[in-house]
Amino acid sequence: MIIVMGREVTDEQIGAVVKKLETAGLKANISRGIERTVIGAIGDERQLSEEMFTPLPGVESAMHIAKQYKIVSRESHRENTVIDIAGVPLGGKQIQIIAGPCSVETQEQMDLSAKYVHEAGCRLMRGGAFKPRTSPYAFQGHGAEGLDMFRKAAGQYKLPIVTELMDARQLDTFLEYDVDVIQIGTRNMQNFDLLKEVGRCNKPVILKRGMSATISEWLMAAEYIAAGGNHNIIFCERGIRTFETYYRNVLDVTAIPVLKKETHLPVIVDPSHAGGKAWMVAALSQAAVAAGADGLLIEMHPNPCEAWCDADQALTPQELKNLMGTLGGIAQAIGRTL
Amino acid sequence: MIIVMGREVTDEQIGAVVKKLETAGLKANISRGIERTVIGAIGDERQLSEEMFTPLPGVESAMHIAKQYKIVSRESHRENTVIDIAGVPLGGKQIQIIAGPCSVETQEQMDLSAKYVHEAGCRLMRGGAFKPRTSPYAFQGHGAEGLDMFRKAAGQYKLPIVTELMDARQLDTFLEYDVDVIQIGTRNMQNFDLLKEVGRCNKPVILKRGMSATISEWLMAAEYIAAGGNHNIIFCERGIRTFETYYRNVLDVTAIPVLKKETHLPVIVDPSHAGGKAWMVAALSQAAVAAGADGLLIEMHPNPCEAWCDADQALTPQELKNLMGTLGGIAQAIGRTL
Amino acid sequence: MIIVMGREVTDEQIGAVVKKLETAGLKANISRGIERTVIGAIGDERQLSEEMFTPLPGVESAMHIAKQYKIVSRESHRENTVIDIAGVPLGGKQIQIIAGPCSVETQEQMDLSAKYVHEAGCRLMRGGAFKPRTSPYAFQGHGAEGLDMFRKAAGQYKLPIVTELMDARQLDTFLEYDVDVIQIGTRNMQNFDLLKEVGRCNKPVILKRGMSATISEWLMAAEYIAAGGNHNIIFCERGIRTFETYYRNVLDVTAIPVLKKETHLPVIVDPSHAGGKAWMVAALSQAAVAAGADGLLIEMHPNPCEAWCDADQALTPQELKNLMGTLGGIAQAIGRTL
Amino acid sequence: MIIVMGREVTDEQIGAVVKKLETAGLKANISRGIERTVIGAIGDERQLSEEMFTPLPGVESAMHIAKQYKIVSRESHRENTVIDIAGVPLGGKQIQIIAGPCSVETQEQMDLSAKYVHEAGCRLMRGGAFKPRTSPYAFQGHGAEGLDMFRKAAGQYKLPIVTELMDARQLDTFLEYDVDVIQIGTRNMQNFDLLKEVGRCNKPVILKRGMSATISEWLMAAEYIAAGGNHNIIFCERGIRTFETYYRNVLDVTAIPVLKKETHLPVIVDPSHAGGKAWMVAALSQAAVAAGADGLLIEMHPNPCEAWCDADQALTPQELKNLMGTLGGIAQAIGRTL
Repeated sequence: MIIVMGREVTDEQIGAVVKKLETAGLKANISRGIERTVIGAIGDERQLSEEMFTPLPGVESAMHIAKQYKIVSRESHRENTVIDIAGVPLGGKQIQIIAGPCSVETQEQMDLSAKYVHEAGCRLMRGGAFKPRTSPYAFQGHGAEGLDMFRKAAGQYKLPIVTELMDARQLDTFLEYDVDVIQIGTRNMQNFDLLKEVGRCNKPVILKRGMSATISEWLMAAEYIAAGGNHNIIFCERGIRTFETYYRNVLDVTAIPVLKKETHLPVIVDPSHAGGKAWMVAALSQAAVAAGADGLLIEMHPNPCEAWCDADQALTPQELKNLMGTLGGIAQAIGRTL
Repeated sequence: MIIVMGREVTDEQIGAVVKKLETAGLKANISRGIERTVIGAIGDERQLSEEMFTPLPGVESAMHIAKQYKIVSRESHRENTVIDIAGVPLGGKQIQIIAGPCSVETQEQMDLSAKYVHEAGCRLMRGGAFKPRTSPYAFQGHGAEGLDMFRKAAGQYKLPIVTELMDARQLDTFLEYDVDVIQIGTRNMQNFDLLKEVGRCNKPVILKRGMSATISEWLMAAEYIAAGGNHNIIFCERGIRTFETYYRNVLDVTAIPVLKKETHLPVIVDPSHAGGKAWMVAALSQAAVAAGADGLLIEMHPNPCEAWCDADQALTPQELKNLMGTLGGIAQAIGRTL
Repeated sequence: MIIVMGREVTDEQIGAVVKKLETAGLKANISRGIERTVIGAIGDERQLSEEMFTPLPGVESAMHIAKQYKIVSRESHRENTVIDIAGVPLGGKQIQIIAGPCSVETQEQMDLSAKYVHEAGCRLMRGGAFKPRTSPYAFQGHGAEGLDMFRKAAGQYKLPIVTELMDARQLDTFLEYDVDVIQIGTRNMQNFDLLKEVGRCNKPVILKRGMSATISEWLMAAEYIAAGGNHNIIFCERGIRTFETYYRNVLDVTAIPVLKKETHLPVIVDPSHAGGKAWMVAALSQAAVAAGADGLLIEMHPNPCEAWCDADQALTPQELKNLMGTLGGIAQAIGRTL
Repeated sequence: MIIVMGREVTDEQIGAVVKKLETAGLKANISRGIERTVIGAIGDERQLSEEMFTPLPGVESAMHIAKQYKIVSRESHRENTVIDIAGVPLGGKQIQIIAGPCSVETQEQMDLSAKYVHEAGCRLMRGGAFKPRTSPYAFQGHGAEGLDMFRKAAGQYKLPIVTELMDARQLDTFLEYDVDVIQIGTRNMQNFDLLKEVGRCNKPVILKRGMSATISEWLMAAEYIAAGGNHNIIFCERGIRTFETYYRNVLDVTAIPVLKKETHLPVIVDPSHAGGKAWMVAALSQAAVAAGADGLLIEMHPNPCEAWCDADQALTPQELKNLMGTLGGIAQAIGRTL
């Protein structure tokens, strides 16, 4: 940690900072410049917080220089982590496309969806049984019954299933239906009690980025899960909130190379929620794969116009198939496979 | 709802939209302009969603024109709602300042805090027992034990207590300690299961604005609580996330007059978390009261430099006292009392 | 235009709106719903502004439904426009990579740069002679002398040159040195006098997106140029400002398919300024091409460590060459050439 | 400047950084921590840029610790600067309200406006003759003729005039009509050539904050003006761009205390453009004054419904008068006068 002292700092003020550092078991390096004096902390700075120093007299600012996350950091683990999802590897050379409808509606819709997901060549399936909706008056999902339909449909094609957990009290139900990947939604990225709970189970977790979460907050949220013992974490970029109103969110492709540098864990992208319109999905999917994403989470519906939610962002089965073709070419161009 | 058709729309496409409207029990008004044809839905549009129409051929866009929130809307209730918090009115002519430390640390710290809050002339006290922290390695709060310390300290001055609920499973503990006002934090504004849960109890709820929540999403989150039967909801603006890095958040004072127009419920402001620095709190508090806030939520600590969290944003007891004096003058200038 | 009337609207208020519409030469369609009455304007709504109606009694809101831009709109011109830049086509099947240093430093640096740009297979060269710098104390560019060095260096390889114009008074100098493409920088996207000026000359113009400009404002800025008679406009996405601090800007790849839908003009991307770091450039370039960009604007320096500005974002000549290889594969995968 | 070295730094890499510092005439302080080595620059760091170091091998990041602005900084001038505007002091104990219409329309409208501004008790008048408009097809202002009407109208009440300069080529006209305060609009905050030009004249300049400019960029833009010799600079906060769509911009009241801390120059606020609606202006004006603003820039029109631009944000003469009354009370509560 670096502590920058104000312009007219006194020796007494510097002494107080040094004392606080030493009390915490660290040492101080004092650098007296022309305009500012800077105190560097020598030792494990993770136990320090900036606000331990900023209220002290004479302190102008304090900043961490070491990363605050440990287990998820690439510094702690150089090699890419490949997560095994019921036999399907995520995070290696092969890119995984997880497709399926926004929400579980009927058994027939799920059966058809599973068939189309399989036929398009995807090896994992998504679908929501518990739905976070902006309005309390909107369809909230089928709940446990939805998990049952999903399990049955996906089982026919041996597709591992990915579905969203919204509340810690539903976790037992998820384990009962043997959900393969637990998704934590954007609104729950900093629901710390929920993170601690999934940190205690041994299922892979997709951690969606909060709508306006910084990369650093996102990594710290993953650290909450990891600190509980569950290291099977998959980051999912899904667009961030900005001033632009033409599209729902702005897909942050830069997050892909940045995360690949900061963490050893896999990074996937949800192009469907990012743009919010089906006609944007192909371009965003292609961009994500070209930028180095390890996978995609794509909405597909047997009949988008009839979808119960997010109807305007689901691909048709044929559109998904076409997209898989193009993505295969891009994967090859960057030395990967689909 | 208004449905705007694309430029080269066909009669068949218009017919399909009209049919979908009629199936939902509404009527259609068709307005053929020179560049665009617009279809207006006549009837209760709350049961419609935009995505029911946007994927249909020929549709360019669809937009709601009625508000999506009902119970919390001022249209449904013209008069200001005044909430009774153990005898203290919030939302009327009198402005309420809720003060106290960021987190419950020790019984002594809470006793001192309660004393200073009371002496400054505040009628409500705040303090955190369950703490949402960015890092899993930071102090997470004393939990139930903290509620106990808080209750004892505040009881000496008959100060109703305000504290944050982070997880539905803690609600029973909150009721057991008879917490007077349940606070829902910024990270949980769209934790819908938690909102439903507090909607079922009869305690006043402070609903903090999500870090990047729109006014409309915030009102809808309140509607979740209201839909459960609990109408004692207090909105709390606490700064929004922007590109500016000099301060933690940007206090959105415009939200105050806007909420007072849109809802009958009280609106308070948290100037401490907004700016993130003690030296900004006076100016932001004054601005909030001048803009029409019904109350403030201010961090004060008997000894800020020693605070266990957010040390750089707590006022000293003397600073709080001075601020109360200035706020009294501003309240008077706008025809209110403190 | 749609004018939404408030809940308790009177016939007189509706009459006033209708009268104002009729005075402007349009007709009104009145749709009385259960909660709201909506008035649709029939006729050319471009002459109307929303604020003509919003201050009238009883009006809740007013919104345009037709696009405000005309010449640049794809509605006015279905086919992609291909711009001829001294023989190099931009906007067609072939993707163009424009490379070169941030600023013109010395004749030798420019000669070397031109050589490397040519050797990497790029057909256009960039370089800044007039530099917009945040600080008045930073290097402001060599000005006209820089244009001279640039012209000489690029001429050896017949590379058309792209350089930034910051002030209308420099335009004559630009024409004198026969600059092939005039670049309008992000800070000048809404410098309307400058836009009008380049609208009157017949040189291709690269219009960079303002740091926080919406797609709609950007299209309107282009319309300023087009309205002056110059239709050779190239949009350049260069990252937008958000809350994220890890990287300088967030490259908005979604803008690519959106612009390709809204306008017939070419769209290029500047991955160097977007991320602000050389190690991010490859991933962002690949994403941009995969998403459908017609070209890229990339910073390359013979010796990045010695660059006079933006040293940390320039590629080395070898990095540029390697990137060209990968981009060629991606171009092929999406049916284009490099 | 602080240069943070990566985890596995070598002595050679540290040596290269030290050498670069020494070549620039500074000294290095090396602090070897457990996880990171930090190099502090001792000497005048304003001549260094971060990108001089970030591309060097082994460097993780570099950051300035001294302020980059000098003349405008409060460090360079402790006392508040009070600017004399044709006899009206701005920046002292007395708060100044600058009122008038968005644009100069007719002589009669300006005469009436001047009368109402004067009657409300305001001592300065605003009005636009050159108008920055999003659309090239909208009214662009009367230009020089407008300045003439404005001058005549304001002269009757001896009101100094404030008006916007959009292009350096119009400066002579501004001097000819003896404009009292030159306003630089939000879109031109980083039009560096324009800043340099007004820096060379001796008129007070209102520098509006760019729509998404950071405090630091804003101070640097002012430094451009100051570096030219003109120190009569007034900062004007006018709302920043965020994700919120209910209102045009978010008035950033936090900028007021922050600027008062960072600079000795006056700070005013434009509540009209911030909110974009007349009904928000009173609350925002009150907030701005309560937060410490030295003045306000308010739109008032003799007949808002008939205004040629921004009709929905202008106050009526009576509304302005009422607001002045409330502001007087708030000014008194914080120890100032109106």
